This record gives sequence, structure tokens and C-alpha cells, in this order.
Amino acid sequence: MSTEQTILTSAAAYAEFGDLLHAAAPEARFLLASPERVIDCGTGKQVREVRPTIAWLSSDLFAGGSGVAWFASLFINSPALRWVHSSTAGLDSPVFGKLRERGVRVTGAHIYGPQISEFVLREALDHLQHAAAWRAGQLTRSWAPHDFREMAGTTWLVIGLGEIGGRIARTAHALGARVLGSARHEPTDLSGMAEYVSPDAVTDRLGDADVVVIARPALDDAVLVDRPFLDAMAPDSLLVNISRGSLVDEVALLAALDAGRPARAVLDVFASEPLPTDSPLWSHPKVVVTPHTSGQGDGRFARGAQVFAKLLRA
Amino acid sequence: MSTEQTILTSAAAYAEFGDLLHAAAPEARFLLASPERVIDCGTGKQVREVRPTIAWLSSDLFAGGSGVAWFASLFINSPALRWVHSSTAGLDSPVFGKLRERGVRVTGAHIYGPQISEFVLREALDHLQHAAAWRAGQLTRSWAPHDFREMAGTTWLVIGLGEIGGRIARTAHALGARVLGSARHEPTDLSGMAEYVSPDAVTDRLGDADVVVIARPALDDAVLVDRPFLDAMAPDSLLVNISRGSLVDEVALLAALDAGRPARAVLDVFASEPLPTDSPLWSHPKVVVTPHTSGQGDGRFARGAQVFAKLLRA
Repeated sequence: MSTEQTILTSAAAYAEFGDLLHAAAPEARFLLASPERVIDCGTGKQVREVRPTIAWLSSDLFAGGSGVAWFASLFINSPALRWVHSSTAGLDSPVFGKLRERGVRVTGAHIYGPQISEFVLREALDHLQHAAAWRAGQLTRSWAPHDFREMAGTTWLVIGLGEIGGRIARTAHALGARVLGSARHEPTDLSGMAEYVSPDAVTDRLGDADVVVIARPALDDAVLVDRPFLDAMAPDSLLVNISRGSLVDEVALLAALDAGRPARAVLDVFASEPLPTDSPLWSHPKVVVTPHTSGQGDGRFARGAQVFAKLLRA
Repeated sequence: MSTEQTILTSAAAYAEFGDLLHAAAPEARFLLASPERVIDCGTGKQVREVRPTIAWLSSDLFAGGSGVAWFASLFINSPALRWVHSSTAGLDSPVFGKLRERGVRVTGAHIYGPQISEFVLREALDHLQHAAAWRAGQLTRSWAPHDFREMAGTTWLVIGLGEIGGRIARTAHALGARVLGSARHEPTDLSGMAEYVSPDAVTDRLGDADVVVIARPALDDAVLVDRPFLDAMAPDSLLVNISRGSLVDEVALLAALDAGRPARAVLDVFASEPLPTDSPLWSHPKVVVTPHTSGQGDGRFARGAQVFAKLLRA
């Protein structure tokens, strides 16, 4: 193999950010993939033997939950593959583990903090303000004001302090909340956090938290939010999961909600996705279901391209 | 009259913050009012002739929109009255003007910024994220993710830069929005604002704003949001009014929403309150009606007592 760079990108991402990528790697050959075909950008011709050295899983490939299997099949068996950069939030898929075993460098973009923290903030404010009661009042033309909780009086426990969890913690802190942060290892940057909580102390501190956010990767099959975890939560508290559905025991959660703690759960991720139509989560009065959508902020495409271009240049 | 202080407070506020008030004015006589009777705190006896020198309109008096007329009637004709402190958001009621004409000092607490900015933030995020579509999806068990706008890409125009408008501006800025601020006079503190917009330039700049927040007092009967104002707004924009209903021409607003700009209006205040049952605002698909409730954060009671006690001490 020569040291020539052959970069596989989605045709959609190239159409939007081609200038940026060319500037970062002027000598590279770009292969533009769509589900129908792969085009060599230099010649405009269709490529039959797709053997990239570099592959970029851009954010558009994940949009709408269409799956990236067709794109992955274009690089996964390339003998020349040296580097895969993924603009998705989690690198905990087994595919990436297998690539690493083959000696392929795997990198991920940290571009999901802003939108996921805004999503979590909206859901937390919605809960603290009982906004659902105002919406119900409008439907019945009922003028029924009510008192609500302010952020300043609340305590948050954020589990997982990577780019996403760290951003959630800083956003809650900026609005006056007291934030406890937990991660496997104590991060060097604890800005916005009142306290670091080690994993084995989480159960003891859950009762202090009004809002508990799961932002930890699922690196093994272990369930984090099980019955003892739920039993330790405060009665008025909110559980938010924007990480992986496998971290939550959904059956135990429904029982815990029925028993009164936590008060509410916001679930953007599920053990099985799309969430099956017959799941009792859909209609439980204390569950907010969203369709794995908290990462879909419109700034992710540009941020993802900027991060990839920066790494490409380096 | 002696210089003795006779302070009229609500019995409910005194029950919660009496210690604080006593510490601030140890020599004062406190009269505790409930709708049924007024009690002298020192003697425990009912007071027939209520002639306070100081009256505190605490936040509990405004809760639930029950009205403060019964409380105002206890001090409004007191010949000894020197000072009225109100823990409400607006001092634009004619009652306060009349007191000022009589030489009574009128002060207001600045305690509504935190909760109203959190209310506005929730409504803005709800709009930017199209959260209503996710809620509708849950009702029909539809797994339908969608892209949404992040705060970082948005421009806000906040009209009125007092304690409430200033706080809204800083909160939006902290989450990445570009904030234009407008007030009758350019404030000395423009922190969080990208630019000051003078009142006569507002119409020219409305088209730049994704979110327009009305946080200006209604000091005269003039309508601010009229047809030319609405015509100047951007098609995808959100109008939020948390100030006074009289500032918005509701008929013109409905016509503007039907014509496509703004895209949505969040109204917490109305020309007539409670909003009449037959108002078309209740059922308009682009209007969010809330019952003059954005100030009802649970931190206002303690903040109000602290501000009054501080002034009492001084």
C-alpha cells in the first residue's frame, strides 16, 4: 500500500462540507457514497472496488435512525483501512471494538453536548414547572395557575461526565442547580460540579437528587438503573436517560414509578429500538417517551465536519 | 405621629418569615392580616383600627390570582402610611401612582427574574425543539425522531431590560444565543447582550430575531405589539409575552399567526384576565396560553422577605 489517502464519506456530507475536507487533505482521493453507488470525486466515475484507508461516519448517516449498515459494509472489509472517525455520540458498539482489534484507529467526535444538554434542560424544566398541567388547562380552557420549582433549589446527579454529561452538569449549574457528578474516574475538570461522587457512593447519594441524568456509556452489558438504584431515588425525583436503553431495567422502572419513586422518567433510549408498539412505556402516565432524538440538534453536522477536518489535517 | 413603626404584613408571610422581620426591625409593632381579621402580634389581640406606617405586599398575597384588594383596603387610607413595599413584579398599577402622589414611598422587589427566565427558557426550547411533535408521537405510539434547532444558532430580541428582561437576556446568552436587548434607556449593564437596540430601531431589527420576548412594563396604555410590529417579525419566530397583556393587540396577533409570522406565540398575560372562556386564543393551534403564572417560582417568597427585611433594616 502507498501512503495515499482514500477517504470514504457520505455523498450528503461531502455536498455540504467538501470545501472544508479538501482544504484539510488536498492530496486525498474522496469516495462519495450513497446507498445506490460510490463515486470517485476526482473522476466522477462509479467505483466498484471500494477500498478506503479512511472512513468518516458523518452525522447525516445516523439521522432518522435509518442505520449505517450499508455505509459500514463499504469500509469494514477494506484491507487498507487505517482510521475510522465516527460523528456519533457513542463508540460502545461492538463494531468499533472489532476494528480496534484489527489495529484500525477509531475516533469519535465530541459534538453532542450542546443539543443533548438543551434537550435534558427542557425536560427537567417541564417536570419542575409541571408544564403538562398548563397544557391540559389550555385544552379545557381552565385558568389554573400553580406554583413551581425553580432550578436554584434543585440538586442534580449526573452519571457519566464525558462531553455530554459534563455539558449537562455545567448547564444545570449555570441555571443555579447544585450538581453532583459521577464517573468511573474522577475527571480533572469538575467545573460546574459541587462534588464528585464515586461509582460505589452513587446509591448513597441518589436520595439527595431531584434530577438524575444517565449520561454514561454502556461499555458492558451491566444494568445501572436496577431495583436497588430506583429504591434509593427520592419520591419527587426525575430520571432522565439519554445514553443507552440497556442501562435501565425497564420492568423495574415501571414498578418503581407505580410505587412512587422516581416521580417521572424521561426516556430517549430503550432496550429495544424503535420502542415496540406494545411496550407499556408508551402509555404510562409517568413516562415521557422520545424516539432516540436528543442528539438531533441542527448544529451537529457542521461541528462533526469541523472535528473530522481538524483530525484529518493533524 | 411618633416615629414608631407599625408594619402591616400578611399573616401567612409573617408565619414563615417573622424571625427575619423581627431581626430587621426589633422595635416595630407588627399587624398580621388575614382576610378575616387583623391581629396585633405583640398582644395577640384583634385590631379594629388598622393604621400602619409601613405595609408589605408579600408574594403570597398574589398567589393564585386571588387579588390583594382586601389587603390594600387595610392600609390605603391609613393617615400614618409612609412606605409601601410590594413583592410583585410590576409597579405599574394606578394604585401605586396615587400613593406616590400622597408622598408615600413605594418600592418594589426584584425577585421575579429567576423563575420567569426559566419559564421563558422552557417555552423557547419547547418551540425550537418542536417538542409538541414528540408528545403527539407518544400518544399515537409513533417512533418519529426529528431534527431540531439548537440555541447557539438563534437570535433573541428582549424588549425591556429590567431585572426580568436582563435575566432572560443573560440566560439565553449563557446557552449560546445571540441576544439583542432593547429598553427605553440604554442600561449601564449590557452583560449577556450582543447589542443594544433603541426603541425606534426595534421594528428594523425584529426580522433578525428567532425569539422575541416582551418584558417591558406597561407604563401607559400604548400597544407595543401591533400590526406593523408583527409584520416585521420573521416567519419562523416565536413571540413570548410575560409582561402585560395590554402590550399586545390580540386581534392583530391572531391575524398575524394565521398569515404565518410569527410562527407561534406564548402568552402568559392577556388584555383581560382570567382569559375569557370564549377567547379564540385558547384554541388557536399556534398559541400557547398559560394563566399568568410565570412568576410563581417557589423561591419568590424567601427572596421577597429578604429584600423587604434588608430595606427595613436600612
